[in-house]
Amino acid sequence: MQDLIVVEGGVTAARGYRAAGVSAGIKKAGRLDFAMLVSERPAVVAGVFTTNRIQGAPVKLCRERVAGGAGARAVVINSGNANACTGPEGLDNARQTARLVAGGLGCDEGQVLVCSTGTIGIPLPMDKIANGVTLVVPALKPDGGAIAAHAIMTTDTVDKQFAVEVRIDGRAVRVGGMAKGAGMIEPHMATMLAFVTTDAAVGREALQACLARAVERSFNRITVDGDQSCNDTVLLLANGAAGGATLEAGHRDWPAFVQAVETVCRELAIRVVKDGEGATKFVTVEVRGAASDGDADLAARAIARSFLVKTSWFGGDPNWGRVINAVGYSGAAVRGDVVDIAYDGLTAFQQGRPVLHARLPELEAVLRKPAFTLAVDLHLGQGAAVMYTCDCSEDYVKINSEYMT
Amino acid sequence: MQDLIVVEGGVTAARGYRAAGVSAGIKKAGRLDFAMLVSERPAVVAGVFTTNRIQGAPVKLCRERVAGGAGARAVVINSGNANACTGPEGLDNARQTARLVAGGLGCDEGQVLVCSTGTIGIPLPMDKIANGVTLVVPALKPDGGAIAAHAIMTTDTVDKQFAVEVRIDGRAVRVGGMAKGAGMIEPHMATMLAFVTTDAAVGREALQACLARAVERSFNRITVDGDQSCNDTVLLLANGAAGGATLEAGHRDWPAFVQAVETVCRELAIRVVKDGEGATKFVTVEVRGAASDGDADLAARAIARSFLVKTSWFGGDPNWGRVINAVGYSGAAVRGDVVDIAYDGLTAFQQGRPVLHARLPELEAVLRKPAFTLAVDLHLGQGAAVMYTCDCSEDYVKINSEYMT
Repeated sequence: MQDLIVVEGGVTAARGYRAAGVSAGIKKAGRLDFAMLVSERPAVVAGVFTTNRIQGAPVKLCRERVAGGAGARAVVINSGNANACTGPEGLDNARQTARLVAGGLGCDEGQVLVCSTGTIGIPLPMDKIANGVTLVVPALKPDGGAIAAHAIMTTDTVDKQFAVEVRIDGRAVRVGGMAKGAGMIEPHMATMLAFVTTDAAVGREALQACLARAVERSFNRITVDGDQSCNDTVLLLANGAAGGATLEAGHRDWPAFVQAVETVCRELAIRVVKDGEGATKFVTVEVRGAASDGDADLAARAIARSFLVKTSWFGGDPNWGRVINAVGYSGAAVRGDVVDIAYDGLTAFQQGRPVLHARLPELEAVLRKPAFTLAVDLHLGQGAAVMYTCDCSEDYVKINSEYMT
Repeated sequence: MQDLIVVEGGVTAARGYRAAGVSAGIKKAGRLDFAMLVSERPAVVAGVFTTNRIQGAPVKLCRERVAGGAGARAVVINSGNANACTGPEGLDNARQTARLVAGGLGCDEGQVLVCSTGTIGIPLPMDKIANGVTLVVPALKPDGGAIAAHAIMTTDTVDKQFAVEVRIDGRAVRVGGMAKGAGMIEPHMATMLAFVTTDAAVGREALQACLARAVERSFNRITVDGDQSCNDTVLLLANGAAGGATLEAGHRDWPAFVQAVETVCRELAIRVVKDGEGATKFVTVEVRGAASDGDADLAARAIARSFLVKTSWFGGDPNWGRVINAVGYSGAAVRGDVVDIAYDGLTAFQQGRPVLHARLPELEAVLRKPAFTLAVDLHLGQGAAVMYTCDCSEDYVKINSEYMT
């Protein structure tokens, strides 16, 4: 596999895209709350959406338009209002938003995708949306990725952008993206929006397969609090601005393209977890030696979701008892007397028993690090899985007990 | 169904039982940490145990002895050390504990049950256990239920006892119990020990069926933090000291007996949740109108387990958005446009839309109460389920981030 070159520019790193972020007045105090991403030519688009049975109006609109296959010219995203649980008017408002954007850009309304994130149940303020469209269209720039990444934030404390360059048929092709999300983060999917662009030309089915696989290995492997939102959306646009033939799954450089998309998705996903509400530590949970990959997945998810495990990490405690306990109820096959647990390669628990107390100061030093890996070996087979997660501090409770309704 | 009379005495309310609690030195600073419950005659015993695949040594011992059917003369319980993840020596130590108790009481070792709760992975300090047995046997009293209930506590802030009297064949029969648990609380089972006694004579299979049903409707309907422990145990002893024929499932007063056991289990379970780590509010989650009882159960559990819902309750926020979101990912069939959500009968969300803002001050008043009911009507069928849970405060994180290893 070829080396990827990390490049600047986020969602506008690829050629033929412009973006912008403005303050439309949806959030208070003039904060950025309205972003737009435009492809200069119609892009092939793939999407992966929340599996929550309650879905916001924008999810319904995007799902329909991505499936329709008409491609995308623009994605408009507002923060501060999720346009979910807003009844039939919610869907009307999402459609009206697309219509306003199409008017502003002079493009086909069916090629505009709409995403919203923020408070649930409040009607979308259409006067402010109209204002946002008026402001954002003239602000669109080929280097607008950074401000757009900022405008889609809600409880995020930092924006999330990442982009790479890869060679396809000898040409430089770029894949870049931006994401938002910090709370209500749980796989399949996370409360989260992510937008990835590429200037490669890619066939529609191949693009969808590529995105589905990348999401499975990135956004579906993170958890902050186990709560899965009703607005999660990942979109991948491919506009072909780099030139070259249309990529399909059989192409010689297809694996390199897939790797580029996966890398961008995984990096964005990891940044979402690192910015998890109240998080002070980023933790990679690796389970191996499981009876199957499915079992490894169950065990890794149970550990990563356990608030008892997460609070012990916050406390700097190399507590293996809560880890083995979570594996025990995960549904994965486990034999307590053969399990090994290590933090950054330092064994805390071996063959079902804690290691000598003398090891404790070294383990405590690992737990003080801002990022570490917890490895669990079940010694029952070849199954393996990884999850990316964070600790849980008192600030998580503080942030989420603030009055929202 | 006849009325139950609430009586004093907890686990020693029924005739023919004695109990005691002492300080054996397992916990620091002379705190009570060693309890014993003795039946003056061999009691028929039923048990329900954790479904966690990692099980503490005492769970293995109790499971084996309850299944063996030899009955029980004594239950010995230590707090401060869970005797879990302690290898083959752990089981040896549990057996040795039973042997010491049998020696002290002059009874059959096979009729002694052993339970432990506390830190995982530390060998049981057998010198202190021996000391505990020496101290506790002479301290046994017919009114020792209260001190025993105190001695089994770990992070509990109050002891949990409850007892009722019911008439069987015209005779007064008592059912009483004690429980411990505050964290690592999740159904099937909770990190929790509960001991229920009765002076009724009951057939072994009938007693087991009665306990299984009662646990399903009580301890398996509570959650504090979604973490299921490896030591959960509920034992029910029936010693026949009240006289009368042996009760079986076909008996005229069987439903009254079952009701008495269920009432004691439910009351103890509710007290466990009310004492949940960091909890400031007790919440009953009622889901109705689900497509099936199973769907109602999924929805109620998802709501009760959601840390976003729990933190919003702590903040006094009648946040229905996080509730509907949890229902959406629960796996239950749901149609967002027909859901109703009410707090203590006051509608917050109707037919998929929030109620008028004018209702908010009344809803906020409900959320300030120390106990309230959240009712969700899915309007899809006749399925119903209830869960008992609590809010999540910063103190939950504080308690669980304290160094434990």
